[in-house]
Amino acid sequence: PVCAVLHQSTKTNLLNSLTPEENTQCQHGLYFQDGERRVDYILTYHIKKPSSSRSNRQSSRFTDNAFTRSLRRGTARLGRPPPPQPRGDPEVASQDHSMDYHEDDKRYRREEFEGNLRDMGLELEKDEDTKTPGVGFVKIHAPWHVLCREAEFMKLKMPTKKVYEVKQCSGVGAKINTLVNKATEPLHPNVEENRGQHVKHLSYAFSREKQHLFDLSDRDSFFDSKTRASIVSVSSLCRPNPPLHNPSRCSLFQLLYEEWASYSVFYKYQPIGLVRKYFGEKIGLYFAWLGLYTQMLIPASLVGVIVFLYGCATVDNNIPSMEICHPRNNITMCPLCDRACNYWKLKEACGTARASHLFDNPATVFFSIFMALWAAMFMEHWKRRQMRLNYEWDLTGFEEEEVSALLSVSCISLLFPTEIAEEPTNKWKQTVQSAMAGLKLVLLVSSPPPPGLIPVTSFQIGVTFAIVFGVILYRISITAALHMSNNPTTRSNVRLMVKTTAAIINLVVILILDEVYGAVARWLTVLEVPKTDRSFEERLIFKTFVLKFVNAFTPIIYIAFFRGRLVGRPGSYLYVFESYRMEECAHGGCLMELCIQLSITMLGKQLIQNNLFEIGIPKLKKLIRYIKSKRRSFQEEEREKKLQRYETDHFLEPFAGLTPEYMEMIIQFGFVTLFVASFPLAPLFALLNNIIEIRLDAKKFVAELRRPVAARAKDIGIWYNLLRGVAKVAVIINAFVISFTSDFIPRLVYQYMYSPDGSMHGFVNHTMSYFNVSDFQDGKEPMDPHHLGYQVEMCRYKDYREPPWSNTPYVVSKEFWAVLAARLAFVIVFQNVVMLMSDIVDWLIPDIPKDISLQIHKEKILMVELFMKEEQGKMQPNYEKQKQSPCTMPSCQTIQ
Amino acid sequence: PVCAVLHQSTKTNLLNSLTPEENTQCQHGLYFQDGERRVDYILTYHIKKPSSSRSNRQSSRFTDNAFTRSLRRGTARLGRPPPPQPRGDPEVASQDHSMDYHEDDKRYRREEFEGNLRDMGLELEKDEDTKTPGVGFVKIHAPWHVLCREAEFMKLKMPTKKVYEVKQCSGVGAKINTLVNKATEPLHPNVEENRGQHVKHLSYAFSREKQHLFDLSDRDSFFDSKTRASIVSVSSLCRPNPPLHNPSRCSLFQLLYEEWASYSVFYKYQPIGLVRKYFGEKIGLYFAWLGLYTQMLIPASLVGVIVFLYGCATVDNNIPSMEICHPRNNITMCPLCDRACNYWKLKEACGTARASHLFDNPATVFFSIFMALWAAMFMEHWKRRQMRLNYEWDLTGFEEEEVSALLSVSCISLLFPTEIAEEPTNKWKQTVQSAMAGLKLVLLVSSPPPPGLIPVTSFQIGVTFAIVFGVILYRISITAALHMSNNPTTRSNVRLMVKTTAAIINLVVILILDEVYGAVARWLTVLEVPKTDRSFEERLIFKTFVLKFVNAFTPIIYIAFFRGRLVGRPGSYLYVFESYRMEECAHGGCLMELCIQLSITMLGKQLIQNNLFEIGIPKLKKLIRYIKSKRRSFQEEEREKKLQRYETDHFLEPFAGLTPEYMEMIIQFGFVTLFVASFPLAPLFALLNNIIEIRLDAKKFVAELRRPVAARAKDIGIWYNLLRGVAKVAVIINAFVISFTSDFIPRLVYQYMYSPDGSMHGFVNHTMSYFNVSDFQDGKEPMDPHHLGYQVEMCRYKDYREPPWSNTPYVVSKEFWAVLAARLAFVIVFQNVVMLMSDIVDWLIPDIPKDISLQIHKEKILMVELFMKEEQGKMQPNYEKQKQSPCTMPSCQTIQ
Repeated sequence: PVCAVLHQSTKTNLLNSLTPEENTQCQHGLYFQDGERRVDYILTYHIKKPSSSRSNRQSSRFTDNAFTRSLRRGTARLGRPPPPQPRGDPEVASQDHSMDYHEDDKRYRREEFEGNLRDMGLELEKDEDTKTPGVGFVKIHAPWHVLCREAEFMKLKMPTKKVYEVKQCSGVGAKINTLVNKATEPLHPNVEENRGQHVKHLSYAFSREKQHLFDLSDRDSFFDSKTRASIVSVSSLCRPNPPLHNPSRCSLFQLLYEEWASYSVFYKYQPIGLVRKYFGEKIGLYFAWLGLYTQMLIPASLVGVIVFLYGCATVDNNIPSMEICHPRNNITMCPLCDRACNYWKLKEACGTARASHLFDNPATVFFSIFMALWAAMFMEHWKRRQMRLNYEWDLTGFEEEEVSALLSVSCISLLFPTEIAEEPTNKWKQTVQSAMAGLKLVLLVSSPPPPGLIPVTSFQIGVTFAIVFGVILYRISITAALHMSNNPTTRSNVRLMVKTTAAIINLVVILILDEVYGAVARWLTVLEVPKTDRSFEERLIFKTFVLKFVNAFTPIIYIAFFRGRLVGRPGSYLYVFESYRMEECAHGGCLMELCIQLSITMLGKQLIQNNLFEIGIPKLKKLIRYIKSKRRSFQEEEREKKLQRYETDHFLEPFAGLTPEYMEMIIQFGFVTLFVASFPLAPLFALLNNIIEIRLDAKKFVAELRRPVAARAKDIGIWYNLLRGVAKVAVIINAFVISFTSDFIPRLVYQYMYSPDGSMHGFVNHTMSYFNVSDFQDGKEPMDPHHLGYQVEMCRYKDYREPPWSNTPYVVSKEFWAVLAARLAFVIVFQNVVMLMSDIVDWLIPDIPKDISLQIHKEKILMVELFMKEEQGKMQPNYEKQKQSPCTMPSCQTIQ
Repeated sequence: PVCAVLHQSTKTNLLNSLTPEENTQCQHGLYFQDGERRVDYILTYHIKKPSSSRSNRQSSRFTDNAFTRSLRRGTARLGRPPPPQPRGDPEVASQDHSMDYHEDDKRYRREEFEGNLRDMGLELEKDEDTKTPGVGFVKIHAPWHVLCREAEFMKLKMPTKKVYEVKQCSGVGAKINTLVNKATEPLHPNVEENRGQHVKHLSYAFSREKQHLFDLSDRDSFFDSKTRASIVSVSSLCRPNPPLHNPSRCSLFQLLYEEWASYSVFYKYQPIGLVRKYFGEKIGLYFAWLGLYTQMLIPASLVGVIVFLYGCATVDNNIPSMEICHPRNNITMCPLCDRACNYWKLKEACGTARASHLFDNPATVFFSIFMALWAAMFMEHWKRRQMRLNYEWDLTGFEEEEVSALLSVSCISLLFPTEIAEEPTNKWKQTVQSAMAGLKLVLLVSSPPPPGLIPVTSFQIGVTFAIVFGVILYRISITAALHMSNNPTTRSNVRLMVKTTAAIINLVVILILDEVYGAVARWLTVLEVPKTDRSFEERLIFKTFVLKFVNAFTPIIYIAFFRGRLVGRPGSYLYVFESYRMEECAHGGCLMELCIQLSITMLGKQLIQNNLFEIGIPKLKKLIRYIKSKRRSFQEEEREKKLQRYETDHFLEPFAGLTPEYMEMIIQFGFVTLFVASFPLAPLFALLNNIIEIRLDAKKFVAELRRPVAARAKDIGIWYNLLRGVAKVAVIINAFVISFTSDFIPRLVYQYMYSPDGSMHGFVNHTMSYFNVSDFQDGKEPMDPHHLGYQVEMCRYKDYREPPWSNTPYVVSKEFWAVLAARLAFVIVFQNVVMLMSDIVDWLIPDIPKDISLQIHKEKILMVELFMKEEQGKMQPNYEKQKQSPCTMPSCQTIQ
């Protein structure tokens, strides 16, 4: 039985970060015994007893590799009878995992699989006598003709011999360019590839018939290590990220280690080209995206800070808060609850009113429009960057390899849940997963759409809402209970205590549910039996995203739009469940509380999820695995050092996909855009986090994870759509925050409709209605009516209601409706104007940068010329001479 | 000098529609003199005197063909010195058009051009001795090896020998399928291709190295006529739609003529496959799109009719109109204008109130939501249909041919305005155009972005607004003037007369401006010097669209949202320019007038633009050209009949692109979706129009126009984006129509906030405010206060204002603000809910139909298998035998 385990060659030490010097010691694991043939790929299998080839696990994966291979290579096998179909019935999947079954069958299957690999032209070398007990290794080398064949089949674009000059700006443009380059010199990483290239190789889909076009003088480096590995992985196995052993090229690794995965270069651009060279396009795109996002956050946080400073600077000139704080305006306010609360002076709200002004001033309106356009700009810039990278990485014209993806999913994703049994310890998990594999097979056979997925998702969203409501209830009841107590010091501490505990409970609930929902989303997606890897991934991401998003933002939305809305009025406060009052915001309005909640959630999520989960837990896992293996083998650390490269990689964490990284960032993007109207410092916090995040992720990929198989990708897929969705929702939410949560609209309405002199003087008075104390129903008046030291006859409360002396006392007034209409009109105008502006930004900025489209055009013309020359050559007698390229024809085609 | 003129072979008679019998007579024009070689392409040039080769026009086009050829084929020319660059300075372009210049130079250039064509392997035959005086013809034949070479170069996907079975549904699905097929049997055209195909040929990009894959047994039909022509056009000339002569295949033409371009088959599906076979993908896509749109209009117009009938059925149960019409409720209304108007009875508005109900009932709200979703569904269906057609037409994986497009635009679109001088009569136009060509060359050389385009566009939109405003002023002033006259019969006819004349003026203005704006948009785009043909076309379309759209919808938007809004109140009506009063709507509200305006504009546009312009004018033009040529040649009709095919095509209208067709349809789509809330019959009118339109366009393409060069296209390009834009705007406009133009929201507010018993009784009374006649200012009271026969003390008017006895008489009331808030809230809810639902529809319906994606997958796997077999074959000794396909290797490569 063979088991595919991820490997990475770049790590020799455990737990300590590795130095490049140590790295060079272990070159000997990178070649076959003859020291000539490079190891392109590693298969590992578990051996039950060190000296026997029997094992108790993972045979199913092995046979399925063989099964799929037979599917794809069926016609290539020479005269061999097809292997017995191992997956006839779903029961086998679970049976395979029970102990000591079908040992001989499994051994036969492995041998046949290895035979098939050899038939395809791959060269194998076994190494069962390793220092790692219980694991056997099969090294795979792909010879030149196999690489050629598969590269042609995969339509890999390779650089041709044809070189052309990339046009540089001339005249003034060039001078500016040179100046800018000089100025940004220290920001560039110390690697070759980032410097301006003046020549570029024309690329063309590799084909053996056209191989005279390519420079094949150095065959060892024509296909680089990541390409070789992915060729082997596509051609021999169907697992999308199967074991891969990193060959030499320590210099590339060293460069990445020094110029990328280090906190000391945090201010520099990333060497994206090198990242792509080492990890492949998919991971390269992630880091390019993260880099662009971080870069774009710089102007956003700058403007955010300016907006915040503007608030700070104008706080002393703000007439409404001046009026609240003015000692002369000593308005008596109505109690905020029945019986327990007392009359209070408006002056008490002075502090919150001043603080609110920091986040509730005209600049925030400007800032939320700015951020909506910023989001649109970010999208557009990303499209352009992506296009540029596609061009630079020769991906133009590349279509997603559907065949291999479909094949791989047909054998792996459906028969096995992803990440099956990488962790040998968790027996229960394994059992569930193999049972699920069986279930999925059944679904695959009968193939009706599994019912009831939407109910489950709705149920989960319901759970989130219920928990949010629970937290609210907790707050309400604690407040009520504490209010009831007669101890004045307790009561004074009520608000602070309740707020803090509630926010922390919220945060903890969010963090826990995040993990739970991730698992549930995966389970739901598995039930859906999607047809391809990509669709599986996209559905999973979408579900996870929806759940995590709802989870993260429900409490915030509650505070922004529902809290303090339906509270009733003094004398007839609204109650839910007869005893719990609806929550009210503090004196200064809900904006302040929204701000606090936002900063706690955002900072807490970032600190705990990033630092604790992303750094701490992998370290811990590695430690555990290391200790275990030590205990098992009783070997000293010295021997450890002499392990083969592929053995040391065995102790690294497997690569689990980019989804968590993207997900974290997109939730952060939500914080940055959704409520930016009430928290202009969000971009700054995000920026600070991301500067660390980039290097953190880089370190993780370089030193903590097994090296993933390079995956080709043209774009970031569904993430782009999710970003667009968040940006769209952000517009609406910001419109509502500005018009309903902040006092922006009431101020405007007062200024232009009611103010006698067009100033804000009298605004505070205008927003407060009158209440006649004699209208208190029995049992609802304050217990201590003389608390303020005088008899109160009329008190005030913040609402637009008719005064006691009108015909219809305490009914909502005309002002209420006028302000409401203004608020709603603002929402409509804001939403449509901002959406229109975003569309215009989208439309004005071309998706393909001009220089790139010109170069693509130029390359096409050069390619045409090249073929024309060839065409011409065919008609002339010296045709054969031209074709005598470094790689002569027979070398590729006649071997075997 | 050579001039490229469009040709079409399918028409022998002029003015009368042609019968296929007549068509077969003229086969002799389709071959070279030897009767063997097929004519794939025709060049024509004008000869000044019949027997001389000199001419006075069009030399520039000829030389530019040569120029471009040298650009593209530069490297393929064998040892010849490059021709003198003819376009060194911009002046040449205009000089070329002056008479009798550089005759010898031109002759030299033409000969060199023809020589270049021969060098490329094309075979030419001249025919200067035609019956059409002043025109010489060069017939071009592309031999097999040229076709092979160019098809490989263009990466044309051709069917291979490999055939596979398309999986049919089995079991219940199959039975249902058969039933449906039987039921729709009469709806299918009588052509082979539409029947369910059980086998399909695998397609693969043609290449000579892989030609053993293709079935080359019948070389004459391997590349069909449209492919041959486009191969020649791409390979030899850079003009995107250069002359093309239609070869035989009369049967295909006949089929199209009978089963497509005929009114008698109006109820059938279109034979899209045949249309594409004859006209190419671009035109095929247009008709497929038009067909789908028409099909989708069927359910829309059904629901629309039901909604209308619902209105008719409930008109007698409608409480508000019952209250208005009830003789007891004889409310005295205030005069609608100062002095001239009299008090009137509410009963007079009975008719309009009843009529309004037809378009203003809850069903219309439902209908506008339905239509928004319908639009989203239409988009999605089109995406799927397009994908299916792409698959069926082997366009998957095809990228737009940027190289040829760029090349062609670099020589043609920038040096010559499109459609230059096809009409030899218009000297002035020609001069302007050649001057513009010079201008463009200058712009091309200096290449700064031309300034002030946005001002020009804004100016045009301003003109539109000004004209709309002018029409409004006309209406206001006429009304005022007629009101002033004391003749009662005149006054009673005022409204009708004014409305009719105004609507007709509007329509005429729209029609005229449409033409003007089309020309201006073209001019503006030419100024912008776009880089590619596609970008030129898209910019032109976008500009034309914006102008035409504004033109068509401004008067309607005025009526829907502005008319009758700011009219003031009795006693203080608002005046503009001191004497003109703002227009008011009739008693029943503005919805009725909106409806009238909509139907007049829509029907008028369709009737006049489609029937008059599309049918009448081409017929007229053809007649003129025919008469002219007759006068010139003095030939009898009998001789006319024996003309070569290419000579008869000379009299057909050139193909001017699909833009007008699409534009007409997208404006119609605007009428169908934008104001559907107020005019539920719009889809029905559109449907009736389109059923005719399809066959009308078909007839035009088959019989009235020269056959266009087949253009490949994967999608309908910018039109899709415009459709999306219209659908988006429609949501917002419908939201506003429902909430502001109709009385839907006031009714709801009354029912749930004010009605004493929850019914609509009393609504009419509630919407009308009181006015005390004694509050009339001097000179504003009616001239004839006793008109109704009694002394009026209190009159009513439709508005929410405080009564005379309140503290603040005639100020807008609380109800006004409440209703306004409700209206605005409805807009927000409607817009966001409908947009969300559209997004969900978009997301739920996969872009690629499931069966297509499965088949594409299957084809890829088959292709892999095929290559695997080949790979295997190479390793075996009988390899050479396998390669001996019908087309032997040397035949393609060794000729020449």
